[in-house]
Amino acid sequence: MSSLWNNGISISIFGESHGKAIGVVLDNLPSGETIDMDAVLSFMARRAPKDDLTSTQRREKDIPVVLSGVLDGRTTGAPLAAIIENSDAHSSDYSELKELARPGHADYTGYLRYHGFNDVRGSGHFSGRLTAPLTFAGAVCAQILERRDIYTAGHIYALKGIHDAPFDTCALSKEDILELRSHAFPVIDQQAELLMRSEIERARLDCNSVGGVVEICTIGFPAGVGSPMFDGLENAISSIVFGIPAVKGLEFGIGFEAAQLYGSQNNDEFYVDEAGTIKTKTNHHGGILGGISTGMPISLKIAFKPTPSISKEQKTVNFLKKENAVLTVRGRHDPCIVPRAVPAAESAVNIALLGQMVKNGRI
Amino acid sequence: MSSLWNNGISISIFGESHGKAIGVVLDNLPSGETIDMDAVLSFMARRAPKDDLTSTQRREKDIPVVLSGVLDGRTTGAPLAAIIENSDAHSSDYSELKELARPGHADYTGYLRYHGFNDVRGSGHFSGRLTAPLTFAGAVCAQILERRDIYTAGHIYALKGIHDAPFDTCALSKEDILELRSHAFPVIDQQAELLMRSEIERARLDCNSVGGVVEICTIGFPAGVGSPMFDGLENAISSIVFGIPAVKGLEFGIGFEAAQLYGSQNNDEFYVDEAGTIKTKTNHHGGILGGISTGMPISLKIAFKPTPSISKEQKTVNFLKKENAVLTVRGRHDPCIVPRAVPAAESAVNIALLGQMVKNGRI
Amino acid sequence: MSSLWNNGISISIFGESHGKAIGVVLDNLPSGETIDMDAVLSFMARRAPKDDLTSTQRREKDIPVVLSGVLDGRTTGAPLAAIIENSDAHSSDYSELKELARPGHADYTGYLRYHGFNDVRGSGHFSGRLTAPLTFAGAVCAQILERRDIYTAGHIYALKGIHDAPFDTCALSKEDILELRSHAFPVIDQQAELLMRSEIERARLDCNSVGGVVEICTIGFPAGVGSPMFDGLENAISSIVFGIPAVKGLEFGIGFEAAQLYGSQNNDEFYVDEAGTIKTKTNHHGGILGGISTGMPISLKIAFKPTPSISKEQKTVNFLKKENAVLTVRGRHDPCIVPRAVPAAESAVNIALLGQMVKNGRI
Amino acid sequence: MSSLWNNGISISIFGESHGKAIGVVLDNLPSGETIDMDAVLSFMARRAPKDDLTSTQRREKDIPVVLSGVLDGRTTGAPLAAIIENSDAHSSDYSELKELARPGHADYTGYLRYHGFNDVRGSGHFSGRLTAPLTFAGAVCAQILERRDIYTAGHIYALKGIHDAPFDTCALSKEDILELRSHAFPVIDQQAELLMRSEIERARLDCNSVGGVVEICTIGFPAGVGSPMFDGLENAISSIVFGIPAVKGLEFGIGFEAAQLYGSQNNDEFYVDEAGTIKTKTNHHGGILGGISTGMPISLKIAFKPTPSISKEQKTVNFLKKENAVLTVRGRHDPCIVPRAVPAAESAVNIALLGQMVKNGRI
Repeated sequence: MSSLWNNGISISIFGESHGKAIGVVLDNLPSGETIDMDAVLSFMARRAPKDDLTSTQRREKDIPVVLSGVLDGRTTGAPLAAIIENSDAHSSDYSELKELARPGHADYTGYLRYHGFNDVRGSGHFSGRLTAPLTFAGAVCAQILERRDIYTAGHIYALKGIHDAPFDTCALSKEDILELRSHAFPVIDQQAELLMRSEIERARLDCNSVGGVVEICTIGFPAGVGSPMFDGLENAISSIVFGIPAVKGLEFGIGFEAAQLYGSQNNDEFYVDEAGTIKTKTNHHGGILGGISTGMPISLKIAFKPTPSISKEQKTVNFLKKENAVLTVRGRHDPCIVPRAVPAAESAVNIALLGQMVKNGRI
Repeated sequence: MSSLWNNGISISIFGESHGKAIGVVLDNLPSGETIDMDAVLSFMARRAPKDDLTSTQRREKDIPVVLSGVLDGRTTGAPLAAIIENSDAHSSDYSELKELARPGHADYTGYLRYHGFNDVRGSGHFSGRLTAPLTFAGAVCAQILERRDIYTAGHIYALKGIHDAPFDTCALSKEDILELRSHAFPVIDQQAELLMRSEIERARLDCNSVGGVVEICTIGFPAGVGSPMFDGLENAISSIVFGIPAVKGLEFGIGFEAAQLYGSQNNDEFYVDEAGTIKTKTNHHGGILGGISTGMPISLKIAFKPTPSISKEQKTVNFLKKENAVLTVRGRHDPCIVPRAVPAAESAVNIALLGQMVKNGRI
Repeated sequence: MSSLWNNGISISIFGESHGKAIGVVLDNLPSGETIDMDAVLSFMARRAPKDDLTSTQRREKDIPVVLSGVLDGRTTGAPLAAIIENSDAHSSDYSELKELARPGHADYTGYLRYHGFNDVRGSGHFSGRLTAPLTFAGAVCAQILERRDIYTAGHIYALKGIHDAPFDTCALSKEDILELRSHAFPVIDQQAELLMRSEIERARLDCNSVGGVVEICTIGFPAGVGSPMFDGLENAISSIVFGIPAVKGLEFGIGFEAAQLYGSQNNDEFYVDEAGTIKTKTNHHGGILGGISTGMPISLKIAFKPTPSISKEQKTVNFLKKENAVLTVRGRHDPCIVPRAVPAAESAVNIALLGQMVKNGRI
Repeated sequence: MSSLWNNGISISIFGESHGKAIGVVLDNLPSGETIDMDAVLSFMARRAPKDDLTSTQRREKDIPVVLSGVLDGRTTGAPLAAIIENSDAHSSDYSELKELARPGHADYTGYLRYHGFNDVRGSGHFSGRLTAPLTFAGAVCAQILERRDIYTAGHIYALKGIHDAPFDTCALSKEDILELRSHAFPVIDQQAELLMRSEIERARLDCNSVGGVVEICTIGFPAGVGSPMFDGLENAISSIVFGIPAVKGLEFGIGFEAAQLYGSQNNDEFYVDEAGTIKTKTNHHGGILGGISTGMPISLKIAFKPTPSISKEQKTVNFLKKENAVLTVRGRHDPCIVPRAVPAAESAVNIALLGQMVKNGRI
């Protein structure tokens, strides 16, 4: 099922970019959880197109309407469905995508998979717009986790060679996280923000796009949750993270860097802290060993490729006629989706972690 | 379910390192497929401990016994179960792991998750030994795919700063793959092999270990298989790859490198080749767009951390007593599991890809 | 996941009786299938409350609004979501159900399961009203199946000792099915209709309710679809049929009657008909052997208990105070839900059968 | 996946009647549970062929060998795999089933589904012999449930018009259940046993077979477990019960009888007993309302058709040649599988109920 994720809790996402509405059904949420809709909207606002020039000029209000599963501000335990109406869609922009494949995009593969019946307007169901219901779901899950002191933070770790200050995962606090969330642009270091913004502007002026790496860290997640082999935290997180459009890589802890170390360098020494809690001195392992949480912060990095939709002329094919062609993509596109991808990435992690908590009987 | 993977086909893996046997049940395989058991054994031999000093000195015959699902050399369509008896296990080596956590290993998390009832001998169900039934399953799936001209290759892409010649995924041929498989040490470049072997030997002599990056490439996989969002090729592959012990990172195509490029650099131009087939000139996307195959080779890289079990003295905790401790891991361990991880990684990809073929009605 | 069914295709049902809306997301439908919304509405009208006195006096327009997955009248292959707004809800009727358990209803179990946070208005997510989105989904699936000459019929087999003419499953034709669907009251025999209607009226006047048995038969389903053990047609159908409120029994073919026969009586002899097709002379097996279709019509019967919501005074408990109590259920209820349950039962079967077709690569 | 059942816990069953071995993998069992293998063997002995003439003359020792998941008599939390070697198989008996369809059996459907590659010896994977690993799994689950005072009983409710004393589900005690289990023939009423045995003997002498109805009752199952719609207790139980060969019907509580009652007759009045527990005076609902347990005993009945394999000459088809044929089934068969089906039915219920307990975080 393309858009169904089912692991402890389930989310069923639907919608096409220029259809009537997009939305999501969350099933198996615990009952009695207060859902603060203002906080949900604030969270989703971090994903919405920005007023500055870093993102698409498409303007969506993106107000989710909850249809079920919440009564008097609390979850009822029944499926929670929410929809977001589409508006401000300029469908005339997309007509040639029925036969010309944007390089790096799913036009050709979507055509093959759905025999040409897929909705290509605004990339249809392949659109990054589908991260709006994902982010709604993530916001709901985040509230349930935060009530249990589990907080997830995200920022742009790197963008075209510019690095933000990395998370010090062993020291990251709830206060740090809340402070970070207040930033309009999700980076810690103001200097890095300036450089990144100017890199995005450069790409925009050049009718180009730029990718980046998002770092995520979850603090407060209890030790002992997860399972070995195929039902571990990494499996659960990866199966949803790779559902975010444009994700091409994922690593936990120091990930690919660990592959270049000696065991004696990579192994995180355990110790007992003053409060009697077992911790590790470093967190190369990213809070997960054998698929199960160690109690250290869960940390991961996600690679986003640059948006494939660029306005430069590109060589491609007409897949109906099976002949070479030239394409200049029209429409409004993000020169960089990475700032908006940060809350989507946080959402994916929150959904996966809540699912594991439920599955392990911890909620 | 910790050890059940279910996506088009299913594999249910069981066993503990020092238990009676390990094994796997494969369900929903197509019927009538010839299974060449000699070829299966050859494939599994690539995972077995080596006679040289690069791997553990534990000697397992690792002969899988097929209990069901194969008759007269062909799959019957019923579940295919195979077991591998454990032998040459020295369980006395592991007694202190009931309370002392090896840094980087799952001793502590396993204790928490299973309340101390998990089998710690040889790391129990967390052992890398469980990749033997995975590799059996992968060998079976590979034969079914190869009958349809879908071949998967793997090699050590990098080890402690030493790089093998990377795959030229757009040009990789079946002959290249078969040639590579004949190498005792899975690298393309003989010079790289020498350097890697000497790096492993250095780690071994130092009672240490070393990780590495494995590159996988599948040729001949048909275009149009997969789905967007949560049921795509990347989701399927990642959910099983992260089931291999020691995996900490995964990227498709150029992955994290794509995050540092402009869209115009990263986008792969489409073209129609002389035979009328739609291809891309480069393969940064790794054969997958929108979760669906493009017909270009599927390519990915997997980061393996260095084996955590090293014989150096390490600081850690006694998790029963909740106090700091010092540990010197005994037993026989691999200074580098990466050579043996290559066929396991190939297997994970073959299982995931066969599952997608079945799910999409292509087999 | 309470309201997610996932087997070849998936349906995710949401909503509460007096909430904003109810609806369903169908995932993994084949693309390019024409959906005739007028035909969907006609099908759903068979489930809607009747203008006569056999059903609840609640009046819902029950117009499904398709939000995604259909473009220019054809399925796109992306998830198909539809919602039905709730209206004409009198929520004031239900206040005492927060503490008094209607005998035979889910008030007490819902309270336990959801810790009192479930929406009790109109029975919330436990309401028979949730069969509206199920019936929508069934109508969509039916169109896809009927395009392949697979037709499903349903009628009231028995009601309070009154029997309709049973299906002659070996002879049932498409014409018979279409004719039956045109009946306002889903029975074949007009005399039986009169008797059933008068029995329902008797129950209504007595502030009582009455149950019944629905018989379903699907013609044209191809042979060889399904699987043994847990993935057979019976498992798939039963897992969804028992999702219809008030269902307490299910049998395939002659079911419980078979248990009272000798093998020589129950076994259906195979023969080759004039067209060279393998058939059975009788259809005691209901078209399924070993979980797999034989090519004979799929036949089953479903037992519906009488609606538990009756206006008679009943003894019960106050589950908050844990004391005995007396309850007179207010609100508008069906004296007999069986006529309206027929299309819901047909829908369940159509969804399960389409799922099996997709899963077996037959669509 | 034909033989994988996955709902809270999972069981993956494998094997063919005349293959090397049959077996099962149980995943997600709680760790630390003592497994008494003698008790498992006693339970399984109830399913084994009898020394009297009521069952097949095939003699299997049916000794399960546990390969993993149990250490020092307790579950480790890792998958529990067990195999049972096949022996005493007379494969020469089955040669003509490659082309002649036994009426009522899966020879023809198995041929279609697996394109003639399925193992037909002893019915292969369709054999009732596969209930041996199911019963092993059920025995393990039963021990975990019984440790929590949840006991399941089963008996032959009816056989060819002869009725045993039905369970008085509101009064059934643990002592009653243990006493019943000690009966060699699973009925309560000795007079009924005599009549049933003589009916079975009559069928045997006539080269015929006879079916029957099994009644199951589980006491001690806590209230509030389960979910509405598709994830309820009925759905879970039915999805596994219909995996037992020869099952053609299933009803909960009074099932089909409820369909013939008025609501005022069928509704079970709630009351508070002396201990302050909420109960119902009658148990027509079978312990489940809205898919969720009420705390009353779970009760159900299962219809088994007569074994299709009878030695009488029968008309059938040669499905390879597509022509009519005559068949006299050879081999050793049960004149009545119902006595042996009782522990299999108990097992199915125990597996489903344990799965729901785990899923609801109650274990």
